[in-house]
Amino acid sequence: MVKKSIGFSWGAAAAAVSNWTDVPLYVLLEACGVDRNEANWVWFEGVDDLPHQSYGTCIPAHTALDPSCDVMVCWKQNGDLLQPDHGFPVRIIIPGMIGGRMVKWMSRIHVSKVESNNHHHYFDNRVLPSHIDAEKATAEGWWYKPGYAIMDLNVNSALYSPAHGEELDLSKADKQYLLSGYAYTGGGRAIIRVEVSLDDGATWTLARISTEETPNAYGKYWCWVKYQVYVDTAALCDAQEVVVRAWDSSMNTQPQHLTWNVM
Amino acid sequence: MVKKSIGFSWGAAAAAVSNWTDVPLYVLLEACGVDRNEANWVWFEGVDDLPHQSYGTCIPAHTALDPSCDVMVCWKQNGDLLQPDHGFPVRIIIPGMIGGRMVKWMSRIHVSKVESNNHHHYFDNRVLPSHIDAEKATAEGWWYKPGYAIMDLNVNSALYSPAHGEELDLSKADKQYLLSGYAYTGGGRAIIRVEVSLDDGATWTLARISTEETPNAYGKYWCWVKYQVYVDTAALCDAQEVVVRAWDSSMNTQPQHLTWNVM
Repeated sequence: MVKKSIGFSWGAAAAAVSNWTDVPLYVLLEACGVDRNEANWVWFEGVDDLPHQSYGTCIPAHTALDPSCDVMVCWKQNGDLLQPDHGFPVRIIIPGMIGGRMVKWMSRIHVSKVESNNHHHYFDNRVLPSHIDAEKATAEGWWYKPGYAIMDLNVNSALYSPAHGEELDLSKADKQYLLSGYAYTGGGRAIIRVEVSLDDGATWTLARISTEETPNAYGKYWCWVKYQVYVDTAALCDAQEVVVRAWDSSMNTQPQHLTWNVM
Repeated sequence: MVKKSIGFSWGAAAAAVSNWTDVPLYVLLEACGVDRNEANWVWFEGVDDLPHQSYGTCIPAHTALDPSCDVMVCWKQNGDLLQPDHGFPVRIIIPGMIGGRMVKWMSRIHVSKVESNNHHHYFDNRVLPSHIDAEKATAEGWWYKPGYAIMDLNVNSALYSPAHGEELDLSKADKQYLLSGYAYTGGGRAIIRVEVSLDDGATWTLARISTEETPNAYGKYWCWVKYQVYVDTAALCDAQEVVVRAWDSSMNTQPQHLTWNVM
């Protein structure tokens, strides 16, 4: 751990891929007569009971109105009506963006020239520079500075085999051990490369990627990919840790060192 | 230098921002009756005289046909007819992509189900994994593997003041010294943060970004931004080097360590 943030750790488990049944948001907004030239932001508001006020946030109107972005008002997940935990009766799904913009138990959509005025829009899901702590963020108004709201997911990868906390009896293992995991990125980009290092980044072994997804008509990918890679069991025994990095189709990769962030 | 590649170094100077006069490529392709469902790739071919064959490459058809991507067939730069060096009479401009896809002296546009068969499309502008050298790339067919062709620019930043090779007389400088440079990224994303470090990445100082651009109707940015940051002159004297990193609106940043690539 670099330093404790004011957020909380989701671990590697808070990710999933589902089939959603929906009305495309841009169809809904166009049916309501939204004028592209007048709209800057689309606000979403839920009915959940949180300190300060119900959860609400917003996304840029050009994303909400862009058919290539597949923003959805959903009422079914994997063929069934949404469960209460997942936002019954309707929720927003925004592929390639962080969960924090996908409002559940949705009560209101509002098109505006300005950003949502919701408390949670400003005080959650921000990536601030590393010299900013919570006190400074409030004293100097960093919560309100544009550009620091995180929208698109960045490149991420996780290992699920071996599992978190799993103990491996490598004395009984073959000479090669199979590592497996998943990787994803945001904004419709594809994962094009996953690599594993057993020597803290000095050398990297390329994993085999498998994807079950075909891109949408605009070439955008929204789902995770799975990866598998055989490593030398003896080298795995000697490794201090297993390091994984993914690359996306814009040639972005994961930083070797964490950058601390107040959230 | 990590290791010598088979490409060549452009340095920090091969970047510019221009005003282009054009026909949008999607307008041209639609006028020619291109069927979006049949098209996978759009090939561009020039008339230049290179070893192997004239320069040619391709981009995904969904980019070429997407109005939000602003792909252009240009005949004027900054109000004047294109100069011979810049691709007279017409060239392709693809904002947010690497120069290697923007074919000059254009003779032919071809819409296809498959990638361009041009020699230069396969043997140039690839980012291959770091364990691949030129020999292996050829022996194992890495040049032809999908996903390694670089299309979008990744996050980049450069310093232009002080200039390359400039000697500074810091004894006559003020207590604060002004560093300036530019940063850009690909795919229409915005630069949201530029930071400078004088202690090899241990601590970072936030620069002030200025941009002269308004995004297109789809929220996409294509130009560089300028940045300026005052640093302590004494700290600059002590610094081994000045390190700059930019961040884009998808929260991608620049790696602290270079990843070697055969090209």
